[in-house]
Amino acid sequence: MCGTENEAAGQAPNSAHPAQNHNPDTSPYQRTEDDNLSNVGRYKIIESTLREGEQFANAFFTTEMKCKIATMLSDFGVDYIEITSPVSSPQSYEDCKTICKLGLKAKILTHVRCNLEDAKKAVECGVDGVDLVIGTSSFLREYSHGKSMEVIQKTAIEVIEYVKSKGVEVRFSSEDSFRSDLVDLLTLYKAVDKAGVGRVGVADTVGGATPRMVYDLVRTLRRVVSCDIETHFHNDTGCAVGNAISALEAGATHIDTSVLGIGESALPHPPSCGNGITPLGALMARMVVSAPEYTKSKYNLKMLKEIEEYVASCVQVNIPFNNPITGATAEKPGLLDGSTVTHKAGIHAKAILANPSTYEIIDPSLFGLTRYISITSRITGWNAVKSRVVQLGYELTDDQIKEVYVPIPPDQWSGSRRELALTFRNRTFKIKQMADIRPLAIDDTDSIIHAYHLNLQQEKVASTA
Amino acid sequence: MCGTENEAAGQAPNSAHPAQNHNPDTSPYQRTEDDNLSNVGRYKIIESTLREGEQFANAFFTTEMKCKIATMLSDFGVDYIEITSPVSSPQSYEDCKTICKLGLKAKILTHVRCNLEDAKKAVECGVDGVDLVIGTSSFLREYSHGKSMEVIQKTAIEVIEYVKSKGVEVRFSSEDSFRSDLVDLLTLYKAVDKAGVGRVGVADTVGGATPRMVYDLVRTLRRVVSCDIETHFHNDTGCAVGNAISALEAGATHIDTSVLGIGESALPHPPSCGNGITPLGALMARMVVSAPEYTKSKYNLKMLKEIEEYVASCVQVNIPFNNPITGATAEKPGLLDGSTVTHKAGIHAKAILANPSTYEIIDPSLFGLTRYISITSRITGWNAVKSRVVQLGYELTDDQIKEVYVPIPPDQWSGSRRELALTFRNRTFKIKQMADIRPLAIDDTDSIIHAYHLNLQQEKVASTA
Repeated sequence: MCGTENEAAGQAPNSAHPAQNHNPDTSPYQRTEDDNLSNVGRYKIIESTLREGEQFANAFFTTEMKCKIATMLSDFGVDYIEITSPVSSPQSYEDCKTICKLGLKAKILTHVRCNLEDAKKAVECGVDGVDLVIGTSSFLREYSHGKSMEVIQKTAIEVIEYVKSKGVEVRFSSEDSFRSDLVDLLTLYKAVDKAGVGRVGVADTVGGATPRMVYDLVRTLRRVVSCDIETHFHNDTGCAVGNAISALEAGATHIDTSVLGIGESALPHPPSCGNGITPLGALMARMVVSAPEYTKSKYNLKMLKEIEEYVASCVQVNIPFNNPITGATAEKPGLLDGSTVTHKAGIHAKAILANPSTYEIIDPSLFGLTRYISITSRITGWNAVKSRVVQLGYELTDDQIKEVYVPIPPDQWSGSRRELALTFRNRTFKIKQMADIRPLAIDDTDSIIHAYHLNLQQEKVASTA
Repeated sequence: MCGTENEAAGQAPNSAHPAQNHNPDTSPYQRTEDDNLSNVGRYKIIESTLREGEQFANAFFTTEMKCKIATMLSDFGVDYIEITSPVSSPQSYEDCKTICKLGLKAKILTHVRCNLEDAKKAVECGVDGVDLVIGTSSFLREYSHGKSMEVIQKTAIEVIEYVKSKGVEVRFSSEDSFRSDLVDLLTLYKAVDKAGVGRVGVADTVGGATPRMVYDLVRTLRRVVSCDIETHFHNDTGCAVGNAISALEAGATHIDTSVLGIGESALPHPPSCGNGITPLGALMARMVVSAPEYTKSKYNLKMLKEIEEYVASCVQVNIPFNNPITGATAEKPGLLDGSTVTHKAGIHAKAILANPSTYEIIDPSLFGLTRYISITSRITGWNAVKSRVVQLGYELTDDQIKEVYVPIPPDQWSGSRRELALTFRNRTFKIKQMADIRPLAIDDTDSIIHAYHLNLQQEKVASTA
């Protein structure tokens, strides 16, 4: 690595490159290991729902859908919107031109094969930037395009120079970067960096990279090029978000995302789908924790749910129950409404009530959501019951609430909801043991609390009279 | 850190500890940075669907469900099955005893608060091991149990000694380990290690840790204790799998999982749910890539789909469309059957056909699945059409297949499916431009290919006659 670094250090600084993370004029001995390496606090997003997402098996975006998705993403605050190559079909060509004419705040990119013909079509459409891609792993060289690295480099520089001459931004990316020969990859990237490319891209096309592999490769690349570094992570082995944060820590500048992560997959997804790339929502969950101020000020987080719901409807999927931030199992018993956070275990509920940040690292209100403590399970603690009592607006003492929670004899564990409420009014029914018998709906427990409260008031009235 | 390391090195070796990754008799100067650090090739799973998963808002497991889930997981090959504390309800107590009596290959653990009363209840049920847990972060000390570290340590050792005296395995874990004071944490773990605990646990209770934070903490802990190290990652910021592989790389021995990742969440999940912990399926996707031989020989991977489907039915959720390995968007147009892999983009389909490993790092057949290339999209290449032709068993030359793929005039882009097939038979309709008009069902394209082939045969018969 020393030779490469020395050469990189000896290279003339290129003022056209926006993300200069180190000064190439400085002696390598003056550079410390982690010198300004991290871009966690200033990351940018290249949103690829309209390119990577269009490779999702269910994706068939009409022109109207594409324009609406692009507009929402631009309003959300992403820096770039990447769309399908205009070469791939006549409609893709027309849609590319239409989206470029929308006048969005976000820049419009299109993703084309690294050849002059494709690049010309892209420029013709009026895009702000062209993303060039070519496979560089030995697998892809042998089985896909069969070109040698020398030919790749020559073609790349020719195409880059053409795109630049048209005043358009240009990125050069390998495919399958983690299975490419490291020296080939660095040599190629150094050459395109010197040719004035705006960004180089690292892509984990098969989704097999681990966070430490990513950190190591990006950190090495960061020392070789002075341009921006874009990263693209498939999620086949569940590491797309972990890889994204590791890439930013190592000096990457841009993360590719798609809404709900939709995209093509290298993995067996029956009957289709793929688990795609780094999801926009999951990345927001990660970054609002890692870089809260930047993330909150730059992105319109309250739009996330609406964007996810719209894209889900376009590609005819349900939002996964475990989707970061906006996931839901709607219309199930035991749930209150469509915009709440649930905590269930007693030990956690107690701490949450004392201080929400104990178990919540993300403030739900940032995403337009509110907090809710579930009290219907057998593992509910009395603190959770107390919370619900407060939510319902009743004034009960701790002793009274604990009474709701104390076990009662099993022979009294039956009856309809109305009978349960009546029995509870007689102080023989308690929430916790009921939950051992069957799942409680939230309104079951609400009925019980209401009945208990009503009974107390009646007693009070009776004693006063 | 030096002082701590020297003391750890000076500690007498404890032969009862199975996962001795370093020899404490050796001078620290003889130890290299990565000396046998990684456990990627010998990881173990603690499956917590019946404990962590029971904290999922929709989870209400009957005794029958619990026994079936435990049996399936044991047959799948997990090392440990963790179940809800017998203290949490009378039914949980009975179920714990019932599961212990099943005689499963997997060891049964229960997860209790770190006090003698809870530990006694656990031992009473006949478990193989007791998992003790206590909060140690300043947040939890202040807002949850309010105990000082000294009291925690004294209680922990007392409870550990009791459980060991009963011939039962014992683990000690902090909660919220990543927000605990590092010196407090290491001091406590060193003390319980010395007291003969079988495992210590590191838990990212709020799901905020990054892979590099995990690697650093586990690597440090690996030098301080000689017992096993269990790790528990919540998925609130999408890093639960990335954190698990990083933990194993740093010397952790056990990963906690749940089926579909169900569990409680620290994040706002409306109206409920949580995205839980490291999902068993996603971990398998990761590990079959990182440690293929070990993973394939130890786990019955073909059972994964069945287990996920059963647990999903118990908790009334759908398998997410983007679930690793088994995810699906069933009953959607354009899909062939319920057990296939789909690839869509032309450039990828071409390489896949030449060599599947180009874009697939996991062999679908390991999970009982097969490969399928989608040909119905506007971004389909002619190689994908060729693949489908071969799948259908037709013999067409490359030139004939390319003819199917060549664009035709837009004024012929309309008609019913039957009309399309008829038009195609006249060689004026082509798959690719059809896909610009509307999404094609797989049988649309099959009809077209069939019609084309039929037409060729008729021409052949006509010319022979």
